[in-house]
Amino acid sequence: MSNFLNKIQNPTQLRLLKQDDLPILAKELRDFIINIVATKEGHLGASLGVIELTIALHYVFNTPKDQLVWDVGHQAYGHKILTGRRDTFETNRQLGGLSGFPNRSESNFDTFGVGHSSTSISAALGMAIASRLKSDLDTQHIAVIGDASIASGMAFEGLNHAGVTDANLLVILNDNAIGIDPSVGALKQYLTNVKKGTEKQDNIFEALNFDYSGPIDGHNLPLLISELKRLKNVKGPKFLHVITTKGKGLRQAEENQVTYHAPGKFNKDTGELNPKSNTKQAPKYQDVFGHTIVELAKQNEKIIGITPAMPTGSSLKFMMEQIPDRAFDVGIAEQHAVTFAAGLATQGMVPFCNIYSTFLQRAYDQVIHDVALQKLPVIFCLDRAGLVGEDGATHHGVYDLAYLRCIPNLIIFAPRHEVDLRNIMYTAQLGLKQPIAIRYPRGRGENLDWQQPFSKIEIGKGECLKHGTSIAVLSIGNMAKNANEALDLIEDTSAFSHYDMRFVKPLDVEMLHNIFKTHKTIVTIEDGSVIGGFGSAIAEFSVEHNYKNTVITKGIPDQFIEHGTVLELQQSIQLDPKSLSELLKKMAD
Amino acid sequence: MSNFLNKIQNPTQLRLLKQDDLPILAKELRDFIINIVATKEGHLGASLGVIELTIALHYVFNTPKDQLVWDVGHQAYGHKILTGRRDTFETNRQLGGLSGFPNRSESNFDTFGVGHSSTSISAALGMAIASRLKSDLDTQHIAVIGDASIASGMAFEGLNHAGVTDANLLVILNDNAIGIDPSVGALKQYLTNVKKGTEKQDNIFEALNFDYSGPIDGHNLPLLISELKRLKNVKGPKFLHVITTKGKGLRQAEENQVTYHAPGKFNKDTGELNPKSNTKQAPKYQDVFGHTIVELAKQNEKIIGITPAMPTGSSLKFMMEQIPDRAFDVGIAEQHAVTFAAGLATQGMVPFCNIYSTFLQRAYDQVIHDVALQKLPVIFCLDRAGLVGEDGATHHGVYDLAYLRCIPNLIIFAPRHEVDLRNIMYTAQLGLKQPIAIRYPRGRGENLDWQQPFSKIEIGKGECLKHGTSIAVLSIGNMAKNANEALDLIEDTSAFSHYDMRFVKPLDVEMLHNIFKTHKTIVTIEDGSVIGGFGSAIAEFSVEHNYKNTVITKGIPDQFIEHGTVLELQQSIQLDPKSLSELLKKMAD
Repeated sequence: MSNFLNKIQNPTQLRLLKQDDLPILAKELRDFIINIVATKEGHLGASLGVIELTIALHYVFNTPKDQLVWDVGHQAYGHKILTGRRDTFETNRQLGGLSGFPNRSESNFDTFGVGHSSTSISAALGMAIASRLKSDLDTQHIAVIGDASIASGMAFEGLNHAGVTDANLLVILNDNAIGIDPSVGALKQYLTNVKKGTEKQDNIFEALNFDYSGPIDGHNLPLLISELKRLKNVKGPKFLHVITTKGKGLRQAEENQVTYHAPGKFNKDTGELNPKSNTKQAPKYQDVFGHTIVELAKQNEKIIGITPAMPTGSSLKFMMEQIPDRAFDVGIAEQHAVTFAAGLATQGMVPFCNIYSTFLQRAYDQVIHDVALQKLPVIFCLDRAGLVGEDGATHHGVYDLAYLRCIPNLIIFAPRHEVDLRNIMYTAQLGLKQPIAIRYPRGRGENLDWQQPFSKIEIGKGECLKHGTSIAVLSIGNMAKNANEALDLIEDTSAFSHYDMRFVKPLDVEMLHNIFKTHKTIVTIEDGSVIGGFGSAIAEFSVEHNYKNTVITKGIPDQFIEHGTVLELQQSIQLDPKSLSELLKKMAD
Repeated sequence: MSNFLNKIQNPTQLRLLKQDDLPILAKELRDFIINIVATKEGHLGASLGVIELTIALHYVFNTPKDQLVWDVGHQAYGHKILTGRRDTFETNRQLGGLSGFPNRSESNFDTFGVGHSSTSISAALGMAIASRLKSDLDTQHIAVIGDASIASGMAFEGLNHAGVTDANLLVILNDNAIGIDPSVGALKQYLTNVKKGTEKQDNIFEALNFDYSGPIDGHNLPLLISELKRLKNVKGPKFLHVITTKGKGLRQAEENQVTYHAPGKFNKDTGELNPKSNTKQAPKYQDVFGHTIVELAKQNEKIIGITPAMPTGSSLKFMMEQIPDRAFDVGIAEQHAVTFAAGLATQGMVPFCNIYSTFLQRAYDQVIHDVALQKLPVIFCLDRAGLVGEDGATHHGVYDLAYLRCIPNLIIFAPRHEVDLRNIMYTAQLGLKQPIAIRYPRGRGENLDWQQPFSKIEIGKGECLKHGTSIAVLSIGNMAKNANEALDLIEDTSAFSHYDMRFVKPLDVEMLHNIFKTHKTIVTIEDGSVIGGFGSAIAEFSVEHNYKNTVITKGIPDQFIEHGTVLELQQSIQLDPKSLSELLKKMAD
């Protein structure tokens, strides 16, 4: 059925095609992606939007010698398929299969590993400067970045530096007016005006010393190719503004861009999403957050919701719909989000700052310097903490406990289930005198009956879930579930106690003394780095008080964890219920 | 001698002055600052540059109800003196005295604590949004930010958000073309063109939806006052571009702005710096870095030096002078600096990325996501690690060991002295296959004879400095000095061993097993957070291998440490040699 795509093993073969044949290739590539993502799941809209741009780039430039950096990488499926990974593409995001993002260890066409946004300009500039220093004036260095990503501070820093170099750098703005959610901010409005022609061409990017061209239609292959060929001969930093449609070529994906960013399974012919299961499911943690903040904000008018560009992913969208003046999407701007929250807190407001665990790494200094140092009661809600599954190494939220634990004044809590998340949110907004980080996982909880009346959680107090005689299992957050399931696999569990410590900071010291005095062995279980994390806190406690118990810490070992289902990844590091149960059984022997 | 300044206890009294008298007040305020900084030391040039702006702001606006946020805060001396702290100003930066930066716990005129750059727009926007939500349309919110700070990504994020709000926010760009070192980057060039009138008024800030005015002369009080009065009645986000001269009013400070940023002691009448001591001193660690990278870069043409806006403070300036094409000041852009280094490393270059420990917090995600995850051999040189003294809580580099230790693939080393720093730099550029963080303190080492021939350091190997019988002191970095001095205060040290562990990661496991097997008690000494830091690593090791030794960890406790001399601060947490010696003596008893 396919005429061209099947023949292309690499871009060299692509370059042998006649330009007139490329639109057919584009259609084939689009269909190929739709067919596979429809059944295997993954990110859809972003890649469909850059099919023509992807073909044009590999057609015009001499990749991989010319170096192409995709920002974020959601849009790189076409790139992967054209660069030797067509036949393995169906393993996308699966354990042992292709990564959902460009990845240096996967292909030399993937010049830089991505996942978090706004890194492409800095990385490509580094490559371009390296070429200059090697007196290589021919190699081209191209960063393709979306309009949501370019509004992030890091991208501005890259532009600001690049503009004063003579580096052979081409920044392509893939402007589709949307990231995962619609783009926001003053720069977005400005770009809209540029597109409408109401803004002069003498623009921001020219002010930053870039040779600006565009905006051009990013689905017009001849236009893209001629413009890229022209730019190939322009030296120094240059900027091409390309207008695309996210989801291009699949009607539903164009019309409902947020849903079709990563639509799950769908009908490849009609585009219809798979019908939702009728079985009632426990809620997603993000929805527990999203519904609960609305409920609380209706009672407490000081509550503010903040998300850096994740209204849908965090479910802050519910508050944005219902209480729009107190719910803010600040764009991909984690640093600003945190300090903005700090500013609000100085005025007695109660900001809930919702950031994925992995992205809070972007605002680490602001948490320390602007929030904790001033003891401002900002409430951090860290979604996607722990292993996140198919998004893989760039997205696991496994360092938060370690990097937050050393910060004075900060409370760190992990809810065991949905009700705990609701209640800690309730507790936090009652008026803590210091900041708190609440970290919870991706995916669903386990309680259908989660919308129970609020009750206050005592700060710094753990909970005993099971009494035993000699071995204490200390779990944090929803790892209680793995611990429970592990214990369920053991016939005689009389030796085992199980404690949900709840607070990684402050530790429940009284409970810990009791545990250490009444148990021989302590096992900690967390879905975060064992180095510096919860287990480390228990190790510190143990040596500080000169206990001689055996302490075993289970969690994420000292290695980056790849992609796969959460269970597969847990199995790979013996953090799944079965492995834990074997460990516990051995201890009881 | 002073006519006006002595009468002003607060801005209310300032507002009673006639406008014609303000230039006299400005002269008095300048003299007051010069007189005190000349003998007490501190930051000079920035505050001298904004004397008129400071007076005008407090004269026109109703502070503290109107909320004024100073970015970074080097420039806030005049503000402090006019807001009730004239008589205590001589305690500036001393233990128990005023902070060198605005500080919320010090005065309600200090609306937001600062120290790190580029936070003011986000913080002031938070305050402004809070006012909107309280239906307070009158309160003014003002961020004063320099041209070096506004080029940082975080400031752009704040502008990008503010531009789509109706917040009552005034951003004042204090444009003096210099931060601590001269400003760099495309935005700086652009601002220069605006000043020269070669750039149209329809500018970047207008593109971001700000009501732009200026540039105006920031030393012209009547002009400043009339413009600020006008802006007081402009609603929404507005931007005033003010041109000032750093060091204004002291000839030497105007002519040598880098030196007079923080000149140490000087003659208050002539402005002459105190003559340098003729006694030969051990070098500053920063100079060991600065000279060594030049030496290495002359032999290894792959070496690149990178600093985010600290050429003088890091001493990368030596390389910038001698090998300018391979030494980059990228501006206040830590995020970009790290990913730029990663991009260079992908091409086989050997980037030394020099960032103060406290500022690497700004690039934490980039260290994890762009460097360590891809195992790129970037060489991080973290200056100002540990307690930094008078700059205080915002600047101590005490979290690095904790927040870096959980990152896979990363080597962490702390040199005991200058020779170690040289040798680890030499070792790192020979070709590590992974990144390394080298953290060293502010101030001087102790070896006059430090420029010895290079020798290679074995990765992951500690060093035994002294053999004893029962108590092992494990120090990291220059804390070896405190340990040595502590031991020197003990008569019989036969019980004590002393190990410089050198590597916080990977630990010298072989040496540690040996230590734990041959000593009863282990004492760790570090100038970083005991939570999650080096001592925590030893605690983890101890429980992992089920050792029953007593482990005592000394370091920075779980609190923010204020300003004062390093020795005073060490004394306040019993980390000074005398306190350590008492601790050790007690153990030996």
